[in-house]
Order: sequence, then structure tokens, then C-alpha cells
Amino acid sequence: MRTPPVVVINAFEVLEGKDEAFLASWEQARAHLAAQDGYLSTRLHRSLSPGADFRFVNVACWASAHAFQAATSTPAFRNANIPFPFHASLYEIVWEDEP
Amino acid sequence: MRTPPVVVINAFEVLEGKDEAFLASWEQARAHLAAQDGYLSTRLHRSLSPGADFRFVNVACWASAHAFQAATSTPAFRNANIPFPFHASLYEIVWEDEP
Repeated sequence: MRTPPVVVINAFEVLEGKDEAFLASWEQARAHLAAQDGYLSTRLHRSLSPGADFRFVNVACWASAHAFQAATSTPAFRNANIPFPFHASLYEIVWEDEP
Repeated sequence: MRTPPVVVINAFEVLEGKDEAFLASWEQARAHLAAQDGYLSTRLHRSLSPGADFRFVNVACWASAHAFQAATSTPAFRNANIPFPFHASLYEIVWEDEP
């Protein structure tokens, strides 16, 4: 069965001065996920204002919800966990500008 | 002075059953912003799971932080405000896959 790609959006709470620690653990998780079946792309955003609720927001595309869930349920991924509070979910795109 | 584009990420708290009310006010705000100088594009995401912290996440590109701030500081935009709790900030892209 063919399923449309899904978008994983993950908003991280990172305090000022913790960018380096966050980026080191994020890079470890990213490298693990990028090697899994169904990974398509990732874009990491950093806030331009220090007072943002979410200093980092990751927007990634996966071939399917199933592929993402399989990739993140392995023991190897759980060991590469990012030690910052986060808010993550799978999304579908419901509106976008025509290209 | 040339500035790089910025990404506006806005995470909305919308309770189950409120999709229609949210989408109606979001569409009003989008139509206003799309007509302003510096608007580049918007992508609206809806969560695939009902229990997500943020049911909708909007990711928009603007030509500059200045253009976005000018567009959202008009009385017309404040009147088109979206009556749901949200978490918004301007972002720069710090990592992405090579195309």
C-alpha cells in the first residue's frame, strides 16, 4: 500500500547557553535516523530571538508514518536520545502555496 | 542591505473539534499576510495524532525579519488575529540535507 510522505515536527526547549550541548546530541540522533529506511530529509531551525519558547525546531520528511515509527523504536535510537524537553508529532501538509 | 530569508514557525494549540474554527481564522490571516511585501510562502501542517501538543504548525518564509515585522504590526493584521494559543518565533535554518 502506498502512503503519502509525512512531516515530523519537533520543537525543542533549549535554554540560552545550551546550543552546543543540544547540537551535539541532535547531530547524533540525526546521523542515526538518516541511515534508516524511509528517511527523506531534515531541516533544523534555530530561533533568531533568545526568548523564543522553542529555540530549535526540527522539520523532517519521512516516506511514511510506519517508517518513522520503526526507525525511532530501535534500542540504538533510544540510546541516542536528545536530553532536552521536546514536543513532537507526525503531520500532514494541509495547505501550501502552489510552486 | 540584503538580508537572508527567515522562517516563521508558529505552533498552535487547538483542541479536538476546533479544526474548522481554527482553519477559518488562519485562512483570514494567511490571505492578509500573503498580500504583504516580503511574503514568500506558507505551509500549514495538521497533526496525524489527536493528542499532539500542537495540532497545527505553520511554517512560512519571508524575505526578511523586517518585512515580517512590518506585515504583522498593521492594525489590519491585528484585527485578523487567530484566537488560539500559539508559540511563534523567527528562525534561521542551521542545518539541512544537501539537495
